[in-house]
Amino acid sequence: MRKIVFYGAVSLDGYLTDEKDGLQWLFDTDVAGKSTYEAFEENVDTLVMGRTTYEASKKMVDGGSFYPGKEKLIFSHTLQNGDIEETFVSGDVPTIMSEYQKKPGQMIWIVGGGGILQPLLEAEQVDELWLQIAPVLLGSGKRLFEKGNYRYRFDLVEVTQMGELTELHLRRKNK
Amino acid sequence: MRKIVFYGAVSLDGYLTDEKDGLQWLFDTDVAGKSTYEAFEENVDTLVMGRTTYEASKKMVDGGSFYPGKEKLIFSHTLQNGDIEETFVSGDVPTIMSEYQKKPGQMIWIVGGGGILQPLLEAEQVDELWLQIAPVLLGSGKRLFEKGNYRYRFDLVEVTQMGELTELHLRRKNK
Repeated sequence: MRKIVFYGAVSLDGYLTDEKDGLQWLFDTDVAGKSTYEAFEENVDTLVMGRTTYEASKKMVDGGSFYPGKEKLIFSHTLQNGDIEETFVSGDVPTIMSEYQKKPGQMIWIVGGGGILQPLLEAEQVDELWLQIAPVLLGSGKRLFEKGNYRYRFDLVEVTQMGELTELHLRRKNK
Repeated sequence: MRKIVFYGAVSLDGYLTDEKDGLQWLFDTDVAGKSTYEAFEENVDTLVMGRTTYEASKKMVDGGSFYPGKEKLIFSHTLQNGDIEETFVSGDVPTIMSEYQKKPGQMIWIVGGGGILQPLLEAEQVDELWLQIAPVLLGSGKRLFEKGNYRYRFDLVEVTQMGELTELHLRRKNK
């Protein structure tokens, strides 16, 4: 079965974005020219996100195509028509994702944050994490890990330092 | 001026203890016999904590002395009499800690969690962090970094892997 994973940067206090949905704190973090992204995305063919992340991504590419060549699955109650690689869905996240996991393919990357990740964590459907931790405290913002009824223990696969970012690659135990 | 620092373990989702104040998740984490604690505590002569942490620590040593040879500063509205190395205080945390910082001595270690750390963060009085991150998601519990009006950027001094724990040593920029 395909793995469901999260890959992304967080502040020391666990925020994906600051109070104003900003990422300047991340852009200001020196990564010494290093990145694990290319190696990661080679193993991903499907991206999952919510409407907010989708709209922000679309804006960044001026309405054009983003993450070309990969299937995009967007959870939204309102949006319906997108590009050819974009599928809009609404409903129970774990149920929908279970169906997607059964299709042949590579890893499924949860790009968006807590709104999608939290129900998947509660359903024990998350297999791996790549967390790039920035040496910053934001004090408030949008959390990666929302409070919920879940508990996981991971194997620490690898620790990678990229300038001021520290990446922890974690794989769920006994999966 | 003496530095105010935090040293301690957190889950991946930023909790100090789980929903039942438990630490079993930490005891279950293999540290491969390694620890930075001895090197750290040599540079500390004062410990700061709240009543809850104090009472839990006392219980662990069966009412006896804990962290012998170091001054313990306990924030409490109710407790008044302790051992010779124990001082009970109540009032504004940043103000009291400013006074302590001016006394000659080594580093001041904030042992307890958010209740003391949060006002110190807001008052920009925290200098260094040693965070040992365990590869565990708890879903809920007592947070290390409570929401607040603060923002910090640190230098990443050192990353130390101790078995399944990853320690980030961080020093505040421009201090």
